[in-house]
Amino acid sequence: MLATMLYGKGDVRYEEVPEPKIQHPTDVIIRLSATCVCGSDLWPYRGIGDVSGPMAMGHEYCGIVVEAGSAVKTVRPGQFVVGSFCLSDNTCPHCKFGFQSSCEHGEFMTGAQAPLARVALADGTLIATPELPSDDLIPSLLAASDVLGTGWYAADAARVQPGSTVAVVGDGAVGLMGVLAAKQMGATRIIAMSRHKTRQDLALEFGATDIVSERGDAGVARIKQLTKGIGADAVLECVGTKESMMQALQCVRPGAMLGYVGVPHGVELDAQWLFFTQAGMLGGPAPVRRFLPHLIGLVLQRKINPGKVFDLELPLSKVAEGYKAMDERRAIKTLLRV
Amino acid sequence: MLATMLYGKGDVRYEEVPEPKIQHPTDVIIRLSATCVCGSDLWPYRGIGDVSGPMAMGHEYCGIVVEAGSAVKTVRPGQFVVGSFCLSDNTCPHCKFGFQSSCEHGEFMTGAQAPLARVALADGTLIATPELPSDDLIPSLLAASDVLGTGWYAADAARVQPGSTVAVVGDGAVGLMGVLAAKQMGATRIIAMSRHKTRQDLALEFGATDIVSERGDAGVARIKQLTKGIGADAVLECVGTKESMMQALQCVRPGAMLGYVGVPHGVELDAQWLFFTQAGMLGGPAPVRRFLPHLIGLVLQRKINPGKVFDLELPLSKVAEGYKAMDERRAIKTLLRV
Repeated sequence: MLATMLYGKGDVRYEEVPEPKIQHPTDVIIRLSATCVCGSDLWPYRGIGDVSGPMAMGHEYCGIVVEAGSAVKTVRPGQFVVGSFCLSDNTCPHCKFGFQSSCEHGEFMTGAQAPLARVALADGTLIATPELPSDDLIPSLLAASDVLGTGWYAADAARVQPGSTVAVVGDGAVGLMGVLAAKQMGATRIIAMSRHKTRQDLALEFGATDIVSERGDAGVARIKQLTKGIGADAVLECVGTKESMMQALQCVRPGAMLGYVGVPHGVELDAQWLFFTQAGMLGGPAPVRRFLPHLIGLVLQRKINPGKVFDLELPLSKVAEGYKAMDERRAIKTLLRV
Repeated sequence: MLATMLYGKGDVRYEEVPEPKIQHPTDVIIRLSATCVCGSDLWPYRGIGDVSGPMAMGHEYCGIVVEAGSAVKTVRPGQFVVGSFCLSDNTCPHCKFGFQSSCEHGEFMTGAQAPLARVALADGTLIATPELPSDDLIPSLLAASDVLGTGWYAADAARVQPGSTVAVVGDGAVGLMGVLAAKQMGATRIIAMSRHKTRQDLALEFGATDIVSERGDAGVARIKQLTKGIGADAVLECVGTKESMMQALQCVRPGAMLGYVGVPHGVELDAQWLFFTQAGMLGGPAPVRRFLPHLIGLVLQRKINPGKVFDLELPLSKVAEGYKAMDERRAIKTLLRV
């Protein structure tokens, strides 16, 4: 089959690779309905981190089960499934606590920018829909696999409550999903930090009540002004740079939480400063599996439309252009139709 | 009157100073029943931080109101009161959220190692007991002012729940109060990290179920072993050094919280490491005022006996010896009778 491989900085190829096979009795093979390019795919695409040899790309997926290993009990061939980018057994102590992204047997999904993919630990990772979803719901179901689940986790970790004032740092796809999540959780004020018109518009559509285009100290000052000097009840950090993290932490009111889901790169925190700021923090790879049944339900009932975050749709064969458009910030997020 | 002044490293003097006076209508003057030396007093005593000129020492206090400013409404002369080391108006937004240690008008108590002290923001800071407490309860009521309230906050910030497995890093007075707090909050397993027999014994008396005497990596390995590789549901950090903070963070199970109340000194945290560890954290100066009514109630009903943490009792005139004994770790905490 033809699938997506990253050879090095800027070098994405759509090329012949062997079809995936069942390797363990707990595996399934799925035929993807759609897949997409993640903001985190851009780190290796930009040459940041270790790319030693060609990498099979893609970790966001939904599709039809075509083959199931002998031990798989909860899904069967012919069903439409959505799974987390973190594969988990969903039975270990960490999974039972709802932190499937730290599963004792966990691994990260790879190779999903392809027509077929192997999903390990299928019973603990996948959720089947009651029936085959209509085609227009595919983008939103795909979003649940990572970007929506990650934005949702940011809001959960930041402990957004009904009535909360929330600040969202980062106007990428995850930040926009954080806005949507905060809205669903009942936040009454959602301040999105963005300086891009199209992203501001989408944030407003997803539920933002205020837009702050300032950054850094000016951005913090604006949030303080909007919150009468108090700070936000919950702050979502969806970027991972030193600037965005410091900006986010300074917007947290004392005793409240920062939920951070952008993988931090080069961020050192002074613990004494954190102590006197009294900002709490919880972050990490999102335990999407915990939220997946609820998120799929919201999509199927058409209560949310996270698929709107895809503003570029390409056939899988054009995957290299999908990366390029996101790298150049011409697209928020690229959907790839298989 | 004679009171305690710190002139520089190791130089504590008990000397003549002016009696405190009402400065604002919201002040009261109290006659102290007892006061004590705090672990945090040892930082300047050891020459760490800025000691520019003589400092009036002491921030833990309880006693009888002798004079009240004209605006004071909730306490009156003759009443016995206990207050937080963080003075607060208890009406600003941060106070209403329960973070009185970040009060918009907050300040830190000083000058309490003395027979008389001024307490600012009396209405928002002090709690009066229904009647004068019996003498044997004074140490426990004094403890509520800081050391108990701070240990309690560590457990609260770490979100100790009924049934939790808790690890406490630090066997000083605050760590021991953290053990007591975890027990009161229903933790079923409380692992105290200590290598000192007298402190181990006190930890066991306060509710510890396990003692770990190893430190650093060996200490972390032992906690992991005791928790079947999972880590603790809540970890209390009550020291503030780099070693203790790293040890504490590594004992947190993914998704759980570290409550840290030891003022961090020289601790830098790598955010990417925190991200993948998935340890949450919340700390700061304890909002003791939030817990004070509950803690005073527990003491008056004789349900807890935090006063046991004082293992040296001296008259106030011997305050210099009280510092020395704690500095040399001959005493866990020194009570000073006025």
